[in-house]
Amino acid sequence: MRNVIVTNPPRADLADVDALATFGVATVHEAMGRTGLVGPQLRPIQPLARIAGTAVTVLCWPGDNLMVHAAIEQCRPGDVLVVTTTSDCVDGMFGELFATAAQYRGVRGMVTTTGVRDVAELQQMNFPAWSAAVHAQGTVKATAGAVNVPVTLGRAVVRAGDVIVADDDGVLCVPRLQTGSVIESSAARVAKEEATRAAFREGQLGLDRYGLRPLLEELGVEYVAAEDYAE
Amino acid sequence: MRNVIVTNPPRADLADVDALATFGVATVHEAMGRTGLVGPQLRPIQPLARIAGTAVTVLCWPGDNLMVHAAIEQCRPGDVLVVTTTSDCVDGMFGELFATAAQYRGVRGMVTTTGVRDVAELQQMNFPAWSAAVHAQGTVKATAGAVNVPVTLGRAVVRAGDVIVADDDGVLCVPRLQTGSVIESSAARVAKEEATRAAFREGQLGLDRYGLRPLLEELGVEYVAAEDYAE
Amino acid sequence: MRNVIVTNPPRADLADVDALATFGVATVHEAMGRTGLVGPQLRPIQPLARIAGTAVTVLCWPGDNLMVHAAIEQCRPGDVLVVTTTSDCVDGMFGELFATAAQYRGVRGMVTTTGVRDVAELQQMNFPAWSAAVHAQGTVKATAGAVNVPVTLGRAVVRAGDVIVADDDGVLCVPRLQTGSVIESSAARVAKEEATRAAFREGQLGLDRYGLRPLLEELGVEYVAAEDYAE
Amino acid sequence: MRNVIVTNPPRADLADVDALATFGVATVHEAMGRTGLVGPQLRPIQPLARIAGTAVTVLCWPGDNLMVHAAIEQCRPGDVLVVTTTSDCVDGMFGELFATAAQYRGVRGMVTTTGVRDVAELQQMNFPAWSAAVHAQGTVKATAGAVNVPVTLGRAVVRAGDVIVADDDGVLCVPRLQTGSVIESSAARVAKEEATRAAFREGQLGLDRYGLRPLLEELGVEYVAAEDYAE
Amino acid sequence: MRNVIVTNPPRADLADVDALATFGVATVHEAMGRTGLVGPQLRPIQPLARIAGTAVTVLCWPGDNLMVHAAIEQCRPGDVLVVTTTSDCVDGMFGELFATAAQYRGVRGMVTTTGVRDVAELQQMNFPAWSAAVHAQGTVKATAGAVNVPVTLGRAVVRAGDVIVADDDGVLCVPRLQTGSVIESSAARVAKEEATRAAFREGQLGLDRYGLRPLLEELGVEYVAAEDYAE
Amino acid sequence: MRNVIVTNPPRADLADVDALATFGVATVHEAMGRTGLVGPQLRPIQPLARIAGTAVTVLCWPGDNLMVHAAIEQCRPGDVLVVTTTSDCVDGMFGELFATAAQYRGVRGMVTTTGVRDVAELQQMNFPAWSAAVHAQGTVKATAGAVNVPVTLGRAVVRAGDVIVADDDGVLCVPRLQTGSVIESSAARVAKEEATRAAFREGQLGLDRYGLRPLLEELGVEYVAAEDYAE
Repeated sequence: MRNVIVTNPPRADLADVDALATFGVATVHEAMGRTGLVGPQLRPIQPLARIAGTAVTVLCWPGDNLMVHAAIEQCRPGDVLVVTTTSDCVDGMFGELFATAAQYRGVRGMVTTTGVRDVAELQQMNFPAWSAAVHAQGTVKATAGAVNVPVTLGRAVVRAGDVIVADDDGVLCVPRLQTGSVIESSAARVAKEEATRAAFREGQLGLDRYGLRPLLEELGVEYVAAEDYAE
Repeated sequence: MRNVIVTNPPRADLADVDALATFGVATVHEAMGRTGLVGPQLRPIQPLARIAGTAVTVLCWPGDNLMVHAAIEQCRPGDVLVVTTTSDCVDGMFGELFATAAQYRGVRGMVTTTGVRDVAELQQMNFPAWSAAVHAQGTVKATAGAVNVPVTLGRAVVRAGDVIVADDDGVLCVPRLQTGSVIESSAARVAKEEATRAAFREGQLGLDRYGLRPLLEELGVEYVAAEDYAE
Repeated sequence: MRNVIVTNPPRADLADVDALATFGVATVHEAMGRTGLVGPQLRPIQPLARIAGTAVTVLCWPGDNLMVHAAIEQCRPGDVLVVTTTSDCVDGMFGELFATAAQYRGVRGMVTTTGVRDVAELQQMNFPAWSAAVHAQGTVKATAGAVNVPVTLGRAVVRAGDVIVADDDGVLCVPRLQTGSVIESSAARVAKEEATRAAFREGQLGLDRYGLRPLLEELGVEYVAAEDYAE
Repeated sequence: MRNVIVTNPPRADLADVDALATFGVATVHEAMGRTGLVGPQLRPIQPLARIAGTAVTVLCWPGDNLMVHAAIEQCRPGDVLVVTTTSDCVDGMFGELFATAAQYRGVRGMVTTTGVRDVAELQQMNFPAWSAAVHAQGTVKATAGAVNVPVTLGRAVVRAGDVIVADDDGVLCVPRLQTGSVIESSAARVAKEEATRAAFREGQLGLDRYGLRPLLEELGVEYVAAEDYAE
Repeated sequence: MRNVIVTNPPRADLADVDALATFGVATVHEAMGRTGLVGPQLRPIQPLARIAGTAVTVLCWPGDNLMVHAAIEQCRPGDVLVVTTTSDCVDGMFGELFATAAQYRGVRGMVTTTGVRDVAELQQMNFPAWSAAVHAQGTVKATAGAVNVPVTLGRAVVRAGDVIVADDDGVLCVPRLQTGSVIESSAARVAKEEATRAAFREGQLGLDRYGLRPLLEELGVEYVAAEDYAE
Repeated sequence: MRNVIVTNPPRADLADVDALATFGVATVHEAMGRTGLVGPQLRPIQPLARIAGTAVTVLCWPGDNLMVHAAIEQCRPGDVLVVTTTSDCVDGMFGELFATAAQYRGVRGMVTTTGVRDVAELQQMNFPAWSAAVHAQGTVKATAGAVNVPVTLGRAVVRAGDVIVADDDGVLCVPRLQTGSVIESSAARVAKEEATRAAFREGQLGLDRYGLRPLLEELGVEYVAAEDYAE
């Protein structure tokens, strides 16, 4: 690992970021051609939060949050801290003191493949977090890492300045240079879904709306009355 | 796998279903001789929901929710969708559009060994769900499966028309032909528990109520004062 | 395993116990030199509870809660039940009937490496619990175990009379004979953290407050402008 | 659970069983329309064993192998012991003493969702086993269960007398009444695979042999030269 | 954590240690009243090794093997290194260079809750290891820990000088002061098992040898002919 | 996901690839500054294999191996197939028929985050594989994916033409453009390790060789004789 702190990475436009937040994770994921998700391992510590922000990435050594301190200095309003480690670690790398410093700088929340702690306090502060664990385990400040280098967060690769969207459905990364097109396709999807929703509310079936009956037939799926079906 | 959609399976009586809902998962499980549970892997996406309904079973290919569309058409008021896959899959196979279509047909909720998404929206809609994961990951509609065939849901085998009971304690299946006897034994258990509860509230011990002191003695369990006990 | 029920173990002083509760798990863990945690596997069944109490330890056979009955009799006001098994078990070893009996005796809550059930009812009763699973699976009363012997609870060794502190951040054990010094160091930590919090609220950085800039330099961490950084 | 020992269940014909063993798990699974597998959790304790036998099913309480003793008496030459528990358990429910008794009765091996022990000795005895864990943890003989009732083994439902096939690729169950047709379709698959293998050895591609090029086109998969592909 | 290196801890007698090795993990576990096991998570990296040795315990920070270096100096012939971390860590904390240094000092093998690497080389060197993972991930030497303090290794508490027994069935700890009695009870168990083995080889059933038929009856277990059993 | 098959990606030089194979995973990982590892989840299906090859990457839909067929055509001598899915999947996506076709084209082995099957046959064929599971579960050919696009394989990002090194210690990716420098630093590390190995064989301690005694002192690690140490 190259031990660097990359300063002033270009960030996605905050107006775009805010637009992405309104769509939420599931819609943006679909709009990106079903890509971008971190995976189901990261869960929110609070109910019903939905945020988007520009990524400040932090790559730490397990059990060591030194680089989170370095990262805070690099944060700007609209950022989201993205913390991971060089190998699996569930320690409580982040808590309310960090959140206090981060909020001062306008950070909107954090996502991490590690643990977090002080989760009751984080909720009181309205500092949302998504993590792989909740664990009070403390960390040291002894080993180098990196800030604002690309990191692997589950199945997603996150670069500094990319957009992180997070809500109850999980965490997603939109590459910075794709935000414009993703907003467009997200809006298109919302419109399409609204029409589908309206149709479903009036009783239309997906089988008909999506034209799936011929596919079922082509795949050889048969309808059998229960009385004719022997297990 | 035989690719069939079994239509009009006989279902448990809805009056029985509603009676089972009042007892809840833990009581019905005990009343069934400690059987019927799916296992601790399926968790509710919402707090404090308790439902019962008749199973419409869906067996999908991983990453593919085609058969859920086929299953919706088979649903009737009082049903619960039971969605599983031929091998482990945590994709978000079900979300609020499906829930909209399902609610139109009177479906009471869903349980799945896969993931679900739109969990905030599902809660707003009062459409309860129990799942192995929350994941925004989308799915395709390309591969055949089956509807209303018996499926293995954790440790439980669920047949179409069986009763699914689900609450904060998990998910349980009552075989259709046993609902009558299970209601009876559940009611008996509730009565017995009420008496035990009253006794415990007044300070009786389980050791005495269940006559366990002779068993402890028979098993050779000794009482030792702390000062006489060397680790 | 020696099958014993140890009676009247010396317990930590309840005034000390109550003092520890006010600090919470993360602070006490730090004050103990970053020790005492059980690990992230045990999670609360309820939000926002924080308790401390003296441990009554219970070592059961998997699938068998006989010794919990024996343990209830050993409980006093201020205790916390600590239930584990000789090998991994996620059965619902504890539910609202046990909680009723425990509350009568002044027990403040329970922590377990197994499952619990009746979790909605436990919340209604204000009986907090921390467990590795929620599972309705019932247990038998057939096999001997032990009460108030030392048990391994994740990474912590818990002896009868030790202090259990539990909140949203997890579960921790303070050895009985260390409560005095841990309270002192916890208070010191709280004071120090308050100062840090105030400084962070006004924009000071951890890099400066903890003097980390020289360390980064010593470790060879370089600052690189984004335009000069090639991945 | 009904506590019964079912005696003399009809068993699949041993000639059929032996035929199934020659095909192995992967082939038989395909020949059954991709069904019958237990799942990847059960692994062999030895390399390169391949067996088939008629199932004697055992449903135990966690931590308790009483019913395995009862099951041994029900075994006949050609059987395979199938041991599971009412909830997850990794104890060493089976070891070389059991294997000695089982070999006397002509049992060919065992599969279990629990742990096994004495795995070095089992290999020396040529008694193959497939399990979810290796664990020396001993068990008691105190709680009732059942023998030769249907059990859920991962995703498979196993009934007494069904055929268990097990090799390095895992464990599979062929329902007793399907053995004839499964042997036929397995043989057909072997023949077809032999032709495919020969073609692949001479350089034919699956794209051509299975006619997949039009499908790729229909699905919109494009070929792009590396120099024209921007990530 | 108190950062200490405890020197010259009293060790179990090597003659006792060697005697324990002959019995193996499963027998010694039973002889200790079914205690002492670490759990199924630690697996051997090699087949068919069986060792016993006196524990030199090492408590490291995750991602940091500094204290293993300190521990090597404390090793004597007959020792086994026991390496764990303050929180979960699967890094390759130990490899062939450490094994080289350890073999020079007469160390017989190592057990760890972390990962190991160079596993092919370790096998060539005849340096047996048991670990929770195999992972090439390197570690740093930056953070303090402790040597020869008590550590929690899965469910076992290991003190310096205790006896570690490890084979294909797992890892076990015999407290130093119990070695004499455990050898006695192990030998007794071996004798008893030999008699049982001989009886089983001649066809006796466990049901008869252990007198279990009355227990089955008492527990209400019924024998039902297959033709009379309706699922 | 963009559904593309990228043809003729530039590949690392095979002489470099072969040089990397001689070093093995642990050494190359260290030489890369402790980067490049996939993680401990992928394990070899065979003992004692060590390979290196140029990556042909395959991104499949779960339960669907269509794109593996497309990938085979893109393979050249010296390649390694790298198969992953858009979400977690343990199906047996690869078996001996694929291996037959791959060997014809000079493929050296495969690594996958999914399952493999026919593992006994793969070993007989000397076609090494590393996977997250062994599972006979078959897959369909119905859904689009991509070939030779960058994929996330655990913590590593793999691009077509990068070098995959795999042995008993796991799987690692060396970016194509770094092979030269990594070979150099690997060779340097081997030389340094040989010197260390020789020193350790003669009894030198890591504490002295790496100059760690001052660090222990600086960190406040104390030496305490066992008789003076109270737990």
